[in-house]
Amino acid sequence: MLTEFELIGRYFSRPSPSAVLGVGDDCALLRPTPGMMLAVTTDMLLEGTHFLAGADPRKLGHKALAVNLSDVAAMGADPRWALLSLALPAADESWLEGFSNGLYALAYRYGVDLVGGDTTRGPLAISITLIGEVPVDLALRRDGARDGDDIWLSGATGEAALAVAHHAGRVALGGALLESCTARLDLPEPRVDLGGRLRGIARSAIDVSDGLPRAAAVAACPDPALAEQCMYGGGDDYELVFTASPHRRDDIAGISAELGIALTRIGVIVPGEARAVLRDRQGNPVSVARAGFDHFR
Amino acid sequence: MLTEFELIGRYFSRPSPSAVLGVGDDCALLRPTPGMMLAVTTDMLLEGTHFLAGADPRKLGHKALAVNLSDVAAMGADPRWALLSLALPAADESWLEGFSNGLYALAYRYGVDLVGGDTTRGPLAISITLIGEVPVDLALRRDGARDGDDIWLSGATGEAALAVAHHAGRVALGGALLESCTARLDLPEPRVDLGGRLRGIARSAIDVSDGLPRAAAVAACPDPALAEQCMYGGGDDYELVFTASPHRRDDIAGISAELGIALTRIGVIVPGEARAVLRDRQGNPVSVARAGFDHFR
Repeated sequence: MLTEFELIGRYFSRPSPSAVLGVGDDCALLRPTPGMMLAVTTDMLLEGTHFLAGADPRKLGHKALAVNLSDVAAMGADPRWALLSLALPAADESWLEGFSNGLYALAYRYGVDLVGGDTTRGPLAISITLIGEVPVDLALRRDGARDGDDIWLSGATGEAALAVAHHAGRVALGGALLESCTARLDLPEPRVDLGGRLRGIARSAIDVSDGLPRAAAVAACPDPALAEQCMYGGGDDYELVFTASPHRRDDIAGISAELGIALTRIGVIVPGEARAVLRDRQGNPVSVARAGFDHFR
Repeated sequence: MLTEFELIGRYFSRPSPSAVLGVGDDCALLRPTPGMMLAVTTDMLLEGTHFLAGADPRKLGHKALAVNLSDVAAMGADPRWALLSLALPAADESWLEGFSNGLYALAYRYGVDLVGGDTTRGPLAISITLIGEVPVDLALRRDGARDGDDIWLSGATGEAALAVAHHAGRVALGGALLESCTARLDLPEPRVDLGGRLRGIARSAIDVSDGLPRAAAVAACPDPALAEQCMYGGGDDYELVFTASPHRRDDIAGISAELGIALTRIGVIVPGEARAVLRDRQGNPVSVARAGFDHFR
């Protein structure tokens, strides 16, 4: 059986070139870039709440970082450094190898260094804190929208929730459909590049777990009512909703083409509306049964 | 029953004046101080592993932050910002009130702002990430000691472990003794002020969970063998071990007097010794049965 130090040394001590001091001391030491603000976020994934027992550890490593990357992207920030708190029932080497490979593979893609953490014995729980950087005054806050701004959504929503519905026996999805939905649930692609490109163009942004335009897979779902529910409020989508002046439509079309990400105009900021009103293609208000996931409802 | 947003709004949204943007967006936004490095650390406390079911939530709030403050202090850094990931079996308001009061009370004492977090439903788990700042090149790293440096320990060790032994029925402590040991276990005082004052004086430092000079309570323990074990390798002490040149002894005596913290010279860095050799008052090597806690042994 591995000791705690062997576990850290073997699975969580890869080089962290962007840190002054990485894993191994009481703290990591980081040198922030002059002229930048820090954008920091933390998310915890628990067995039984966010994923099922026996979930593929490589996918868990990916997803635990992806959900944090999505938050940093939604601020228009570039991700830099991550810290991991990990509770494990036992020091299972095959699990650790899969998990750390999944985590580091995604981290490397975006230049993120794992600089610290904590490992302990307990029911499987994964908590990651991610630190990004964004130039002062260019962060995409959720309160930056102005009247008349277009509202945009990246990609499309509902597939992850459909996969959950399939696993729960609420719908039976076919082969390719199931595969695409499951990939969106297990290996979400955070919109990191998009977040960075929207700096100076978008005026506000958030990461959505509740979305609007439906993914192709959702359109093909055999249960239309369920598909609609998944699309509007299913969760686990990790797309960005952002607003921008109508003068920016060409810029945004260019970013969409450059990154190969669908960006869809789904609404407009209306003076005097205190909350979002969702309308269907005919302009009629849509009532959404489930308005996003609440862990305590 | 509280919703997740009500829970955050009611218990974890106090003002965070040192943040550009605190709780409520995808990320917090922080402006690092020019000329400073970041010292970042994370620690997770789990019910059943780090504390017993039914533990006082106010003490848990204190301790969850204290263990992180101790790590930041051990780098000689000033704590600035904290993020909290919290898994709860239910949104229990009386628990939340106690926990948040304990957490914020300690945070205020050291000027730390809680700027973000995540709440979810699950077995009770508390993960805090703490970000501190330390002037470039003044961080107290564990690899900074030089031959001939004195080795110092703050306070004294063993009391927290004695409280654990008492609760486990391995020893029966009397009233005042039990009270003092229990306070050290439940409400540890991180050496934040000391860490800051040692910048430029100490050459290396670590936070210890295994300590050396015995606390008064440990000396009074009815079971001397157990007391010795607790003192050398019991854990949960949150004292600092640091090294400094012998020329600094007067400075260190001054800091001890100023802060009212016992600082004891417990050894010296010897050329050629690859590991610490612990000697008793007669200078004979001491063999320590248990060399600190390992979560996977």
